Amino acid sequence: MDVSDIPTPALVVDSATLDRNLAAMAAVWPARALRPHVKAHKTTGIAKRQAALGHTGFTCATIREVEVMAAAGLGEDLLLANEVLDMRRLGAVAGSGARVTAAVDSDGVLGAAVAGGVREVLIDVNVGLPRCGCAPEDAGRLADAARAAGLEVRGVMGYEGHLMLVEEEADKARQTDECMSALQKAHADVGGDIVSGGGTGTWRTNHGVTELQAGSYALMDTAYAAIPDVPFEQSLTVHATVISVNPGGWAVADAGLKAFGMDHGNPALPGALVWYCSDEHVVFSMNDEAPLPSLGERVALLPAHIDPTCALHERMYVVDGDEVVDIWPVDMRGW
Amino acid sequence: MDVSDIPTPALVVDSATLDRNLAAMAAVWPARALRPHVKAHKTTGIAKRQAALGHTGFTCATIREVEVMAAAGLGEDLLLANEVLDMRRLGAVAGSGARVTAAVDSDGVLGAAVAGGVREVLIDVNVGLPRCGCAPEDAGRLADAARAAGLEVRGVMGYEGHLMLVEEEADKARQTDECMSALQKAHADVGGDIVSGGGTGTWRTNHGVTELQAGSYALMDTAYAAIPDVPFEQSLTVHATVISVNPGGWAVADAGLKAFGMDHGNPALPGALVWYCSDEHVVFSMNDEAPLPSLGERVALLPAHIDPTCALHERMYVVDGDEVVDIWPVDMRGW
Repeated sequence: MDVSDIPTPALVVDSATLDRNLAAMAAVWPARALRPHVKAHKTTGIAKRQAALGHTGFTCATIREVEVMAAAGLGEDLLLANEVLDMRRLGAVAGSGARVTAAVDSDGVLGAAVAGGVREVLIDVNVGLPRCGCAPEDAGRLADAARAAGLEVRGVMGYEGHLMLVEEEADKARQTDECMSALQKAHADVGGDIVSGGGTGTWRTNHGVTELQAGSYALMDTAYAAIPDVPFEQSLTVHATVISVNPGGWAVADAGLKAFGMDHGNPALPGALVWYCSDEHVVFSMNDEAPLPSLGERVALLPAHIDPTCALHERMYVVDGDEVVDIWPVDMRGW
Repeated sequence: MDVSDIPTPALVVDSATLDRNLAAMAAVWPARALRPHVKAHKTTGIAKRQAALGHTGFTCATIREVEVMAAAGLGEDLLLANEVLDMRRLGAVAGSGARVTAAVDSDGVLGAAVAGGVREVLIDVNVGLPRCGCAPEDAGRLADAARAAGLEVRGVMGYEGHLMLVEEEADKARQTDECMSALQKAHADVGGDIVSGGGTGTWRTNHGVTELQAGSYALMDTAYAAIPDVPFEQSLTVHATVISVNPGGWAVADAGLKAFGMDHGNPALPGALVWYCSDEHVVFSMNDEAPLPSLGERVALLPAHIDPTCALHERMYVVDGDEVVDIWPVDMRGW
């Protein structure tokens, strides 16, 4: 199948660029030092490439992601790095033979883990991002309570998400160290082998974890790609077909609000100015008086934020040059 | 099933509010005067309620919407109010017995319709929104070309989308009249029975169409609901479960960027201040020193923009009070 025969709008991943991204990360965070986060791509086809590089433990954000990873044979060590209360579904996955570890930041979530048949947990510690996680000074108490309830406590996790886009590298390094100091202090109270955290934005500055939870590096976001000296490139585009060309100086392609996660703004079209998106349209003009594309021509747009973009599509077309070499279902969508 | 047993995050539609919205619109635009746009809800369960009120012609934005509507027995008169080039799929739907009309704004799209076996078209006229549509003065020529190619030209369509949120009603009315004058002038050149256009934002001010293409009125957007004297209420919420409560004064619920269309901004939670969404989280504090909800409590968030929100969910739970009375698949997602 030629890339021009893909029905649009469609996610298209460049196989060679993806592999370069995976290799660049594996060179710094090899094998089990990386616990790739699947929420960024929601695609077992990509997770299999990550596992082939030795990253056989994975990070998940939803119960569905855990279920689908286990069903795909990728259940060697799945961490649900998020609080959930419906632990029975996780317990069922663990019962089927996969290894499932849940994040716990309160007695209530701990109780749900026990009731749901989950046997292993990490204590989720707040390291500065105002979201989930217990206070660092409460981590030891929570670990004791977990062990008293019969759970295996494997260690701690803490996500410094508020630092991912700090611009100045030295500033980011200093702030990451502060967060990781808090996490390591909690770890001393908690015990266990694991200190899990970090992401694509702190892959160079985080020296405090035993495993990095990066996910975006595989497909890459516009914001992450703009960080200086980052080796990861945007490997995912949304292909669209030009369906209308107006003599007034604009063109319209068939990918809109339902094809792009919009929380980081409009997608980008190199050489063009994107005016706006509506449900099924992107409207744009060309820079530097370049001619508009012709009716039926394909354009490749860069989504501003990969994670919610992938969640809108049923499949991802994998291309090598102009040839479609694989089609991967985005099989971890939904909840 | 009780509403509190719905797995979260989930779309929840209030059956009585939905019915009031449908009735309010049908009172002003009865039966075939309304051609409901299915892109807003992507759910044949809602389309069936609209058809039961006599609205048996529908507007679609994608080929998939046309296919699924026809397969659901709702193919009496389906308008694809958008330019597409892959007309073979539409021709196949028409060949299966549904009535399919395609929008055409150029010779290229016209040629695709002929090649694809589509037999009926509307001439899509640009009435001011910079998107699709031919120039009004070109509509007659395009209609002649369509008839010369053996197509049935049913009339014109033109969408005044740029006027939907004009604040001052008299100003909106004046501008809508201008747009509709252009459309009617084109109609005089084109012929046919149909002048199709309009939306929820111009349901009161548009007096120039034979059929209104409103869709949002059924579930309603935050922006549309803020228009003074609009009888339609927001009937759709996203239910989420509180998974973490922080003594620092915030709580976290399990619905984020993958549960909400974000192009119109954050969802709203009555009584609370939404801080931000991340992939699977919404973080909020309470107004007026009200207490935070408890762990496990449900919250009902109002999405800012319904259309892309629905596209992220597999199903919609229909509730009457606290009882789930139906579950509708969001069966027109994808392309």
